[in-house]
Amino acid sequence: MSKIIWHITMSVDGFIAGPDDSMDWAFRASEPSALADEIREGTGAILGGRRWYDAAASKYDGVAGIYGGGWSGPVFVLTHRPEDIPEDPTVTFLSEGLRDAVGTARDAAAGKNVEIFGANTAQQCLDAGPLDEIAVHLAPVLLGDGVRLYGAPAMARQIDLERTDASESGQVTDLRFRVRK
Amino acid sequence: MSKIIWHITMSVDGFIAGPDDSMDWAFRASEPSALADEIREGTGAILGGRRWYDAAASKYDGVAGIYGGGWSGPVFVLTHRPEDIPEDPTVTFLSEGLRDAVGTARDAAAGKNVEIFGANTAQQCLDAGPLDEIAVHLAPVLLGDGVRLYGAPAMARQIDLERTDASESGQVTDLRFRVRK
Repeated sequence: MSKIIWHITMSVDGFIAGPDDSMDWAFRASEPSALADEIREGTGAILGGRRWYDAAASKYDGVAGIYGGGWSGPVFVLTHRPEDIPEDPTVTFLSEGLRDAVGTARDAAAGKNVEIFGANTAQQCLDAGPLDEIAVHLAPVLLGDGVRLYGAPAMARQIDLERTDASESGQVTDLRFRVRK
Repeated sequence: MSKIIWHITMSVDGFIAGPDDSMDWAFRASEPSALADEIREGTGAILGGRRWYDAAASKYDGVAGIYGGGWSGPVFVLTHRPEDIPEDPTVTFLSEGLRDAVGTARDAAAGKNVEIFGANTAQQCLDAGPLDEIAVHLAPVLLGDGVRLYGAPAMARQIDLERTDASESGQVTDLRFRVRK
């Protein structure tokens, strides 16, 4: 059964991007990881948010930079600004609701998993229910500020997880959680 | 050599207390843990903050509740309100600066470690430099709001850690980090 998975690198204090969306701390901590390989190989489609897309396109080579070029497949980007869609044949922009977009990506994944890119879209998936798993690479650093894994106070609700895997990749702790529903 | 250690239970999204200082999620996740035993046995003195003390005294049996009664030794409480010190023979209140208080607790620990209690005092120790280690019990839950492990934006600076231990206690992931200085 196809799953909806969020796969991120996180600081010990719960940030998935530093101040100004900085990711150099994550790249610096990055290690070859069995968990990362497993997620990449199981991913049939990606659903990203517009904020993720804009940052990836301007800073990280866009779709070509996903998994350092080590993955290919359909990429969908959810946007509230259909009037302002860039020309980019590597992605399909969607202006539908979250659940419809998840359904579109799931169909495209053809039995494999859908990976969510972007904190905003992932948090919406957590809050609205479709997120099945969170795969976390815990980097040995405290950032103190930035983009948090979960929860603007307005949307915060307690969500119970089940840890299904734990391993170590160098100094990084790899953890996989199922979202209890 | 005596170390200054912060020992906490944390949610996956980086909170050490939930909304309204709730800790029931942590008690619910609690498992017998070799890391917790190791820290408790190595602790020679405790230095807590005033906010921790007031919450512990009103909700959790005060000093008698520390480690469920499984630890005894000198407990110091740092306070900025020397004029408003409760009568409590189980603790020694200190109104000196952070570094002096850490020194007082270290002397009392007589070669064993000093454990820090309370987010505020621990964050000050992190920022000011005396914190040597963080021992984390990572509970399988997202809280979305509450007291964060680290960083009001004003004091946030990146702090590199070295993971020195990782193990599993039931659904809890036990992690021990050295603060790189």
